[in-house]
Amino acid sequence: MALIVQKFGGTSVAGIPQIQNAARRIAYECKRGHKVVAVVSAMAGMTDQLLSYIQATTPNPNPQEIDVVLTSGEQVTCGLLALALQNFNISARSYLAWQIPLETDDTHTKARVKEISTHAIEKTLNANTVPIIAGFQGIGSEGRLTTFGRGGSDVTAVALAAVLKADRCDLYKDVSGIYTADPKMVEHARKLDQIGYKSMLELASLGSKVIQHRAVELAMVYKIPVRIFSSFEESIGTQIIDEEQMIERPLISGIVANTQEVRICLEITREPSKTMARIFDCFAQAHIGIDMIQHAKISEDHTFSLSFTVNQTDLQTCLRILGDEGISTYTIDEKMTKVSVVGVGLRSHSHLTSLLFQTLATKNIEFFGISTSEIRISVLIDQDFTELAVRALHHAYGLEHSHTPHLYAIA
Amino acid sequence: MALIVQKFGGTSVAGIPQIQNAARRIAYECKRGHKVVAVVSAMAGMTDQLLSYIQATTPNPNPQEIDVVLTSGEQVTCGLLALALQNFNISARSYLAWQIPLETDDTHTKARVKEISTHAIEKTLNANTVPIIAGFQGIGSEGRLTTFGRGGSDVTAVALAAVLKADRCDLYKDVSGIYTADPKMVEHARKLDQIGYKSMLELASLGSKVIQHRAVELAMVYKIPVRIFSSFEESIGTQIIDEEQMIERPLISGIVANTQEVRICLEITREPSKTMARIFDCFAQAHIGIDMIQHAKISEDHTFSLSFTVNQTDLQTCLRILGDEGISTYTIDEKMTKVSVVGVGLRSHSHLTSLLFQTLATKNIEFFGISTSEIRISVLIDQDFTELAVRALHHAYGLEHSHTPHLYAIA
Repeated sequence: MALIVQKFGGTSVAGIPQIQNAARRIAYECKRGHKVVAVVSAMAGMTDQLLSYIQATTPNPNPQEIDVVLTSGEQVTCGLLALALQNFNISARSYLAWQIPLETDDTHTKARVKEISTHAIEKTLNANTVPIIAGFQGIGSEGRLTTFGRGGSDVTAVALAAVLKADRCDLYKDVSGIYTADPKMVEHARKLDQIGYKSMLELASLGSKVIQHRAVELAMVYKIPVRIFSSFEESIGTQIIDEEQMIERPLISGIVANTQEVRICLEITREPSKTMARIFDCFAQAHIGIDMIQHAKISEDHTFSLSFTVNQTDLQTCLRILGDEGISTYTIDEKMTKVSVVGVGLRSHSHLTSLLFQTLATKNIEFFGISTSEIRISVLIDQDFTELAVRALHHAYGLEHSHTPHLYAIA
Repeated sequence: MALIVQKFGGTSVAGIPQIQNAARRIAYECKRGHKVVAVVSAMAGMTDQLLSYIQATTPNPNPQEIDVVLTSGEQVTCGLLALALQNFNISARSYLAWQIPLETDDTHTKARVKEISTHAIEKTLNANTVPIIAGFQGIGSEGRLTTFGRGGSDVTAVALAAVLKADRCDLYKDVSGIYTADPKMVEHARKLDQIGYKSMLELASLGSKVIQHRAVELAMVYKIPVRIFSSFEESIGTQIIDEEQMIERPLISGIVANTQEVRICLEITREPSKTMARIFDCFAQAHIGIDMIQHAKISEDHTFSLSFTVNQTDLQTCLRILGDEGISTYTIDEKMTKVSVVGVGLRSHSHLTSLLFQTLATKNIEFFGISTSEIRISVLIDQDFTELAVRALHHAYGLEHSHTPHLYAIA
């Protein structure tokens, strides 16, 4: 008998037939003798509807009240899924974050989990009742509602799997797994049966929307085997596990493009080090991730140029911080794409790095910035070349074939 | 400086323009130096939408989960109204029932208020911030969400006014006040500037949907001056106050028809008194109100007939209770209307009672049951005669004129 956390994303609970379908998947595991904890997102489209209400109400919404409005979506689905299970004669009850409680820090709209009490959920499981948890939400230190940002129900599911010591965490989504590239962009993109935590973390951080990157982070830390399934077809999906446990370890896992990056270029005329330190500190406090940092001295009077990229959603906050620092001259370039190659092979196989630059050169694609981590390399290019670059790189790294000998190291 | 509870019904927060309008009404009172506590309903149509989801999920929904789904509606509006006020530079914050907390009994879908903590709300008021309260909801003894039934935000508003010792409670609705009869049915129905608690309580209990009867009950007990306003026009509305404080005390306040009544007729063959006691006890425990009770011995072998009316929404529960008592033979008549005349004059002016029967006789309207209280008299008639009866009685009691000498007693 296993303890399974099953999470159903927005399209998997988009309407009553889908909710009943989710109930059937839970019922199936229950009937096999497993214990299930279910986590739900809001019905597809509901969060966007609520966001449009917020935007129509005020141009500058307070994050605390954004969270109050948005968390209502998951509340609806967790009640409905409990009803759907009861209708199948399976005992179930809904839990909202404050009823568990699931505690977070106070960073509204992108909170982080601090503590989850397991008492109520375990008591419910012991009573042979399926706890249905509203995903995406928590409560902050003063008992106000918080949310984990887009895709945040993944975080709820993995965090619950961690504290409950679940045997696995199944995420039901509208895609059948993780692909070597976005299948909408690359015809020959291939679904991976397995991917390591680290590679998945990079892909998720770089713009793959299949799973929230903080969910991967948690899964990696607590060694939770995660599987991504499609709600709408029967398939083995993609398993996210420790690199060490993988049967095959591809050197390169995938290519990902993020068109949501915005490049900001500015000049700093006084005390460049101190100013930069202050700016980056403010960004960190506002939980804004920056990338592709470049700076250079551009004249003898200590004027420095600084450029970096941020996510589109953080742009306004970013500009406010710059304004607070007295910086009002900058250029913004929204026509940028960050293209990244991710894989454990980049650690040790230097030809894999040079292959990136060769490929871009062959296609005459200019790049405006580079950033790297242990297992990824990213370049900033003109948005017009996005598809071209992704397809060329996907082909150059031979990702359409599952057994390219020079790219796979058999464990 | 007064403390005012302002409650905005579903049509008063039906969309963003209406929510901004509600925010303007709050801002107006704040700028006059008053303190405001706002209570909101769900956006018009949202509760019906959520109910349709529930009905599509299961034919027999668990009341505990119904309440989880339904309370999401008020959560959305209280966040949005807080944002709308902040957009007008007025400090505001939303409160959900569990954050106050507002405690109720465990009668899901028709809970009763047990205790309201004033600490958080008073602290918010003292910080010159407007607390925006999600109406209609509470939490039960085990921390589960409960609701007060249709129109339940009125209950939240009046109960808050009571515990906060507010100077008045203003209810913004889609009608401009209380009328002598439903204006859709009676062309000459007249809006009342004032009505006493007791008369209002009778009207609300008998089917006037303008204000929830339990809200009136609370207002009466705690002597809260309540005013009903239209959200969409400027008018003085209707003030609900103590009969003693009224300038004019009409003998008859209004005529109300309830077409939601269902009559159940059955036969009891064994131990009639004990059986009836048990049935009525079960009804009371299920919070089902019954009326128009009639019973008679119909044969020498101690067979008794029993008939009574219940609200349509309670019919299924009612039949289940009868089934549990082994009673399976009954007739159900859904084509009934209860027409009632309400007014303090019924206490002492017997000709006002006989006027009801004279009027029905003149129009050849048969009645199938009578029930009375101190200040009302109700008759059960065929639903086809509803409009005819209401119009005839409205005219007979001279309710189209505000100063009919024989019907008004000047204080």
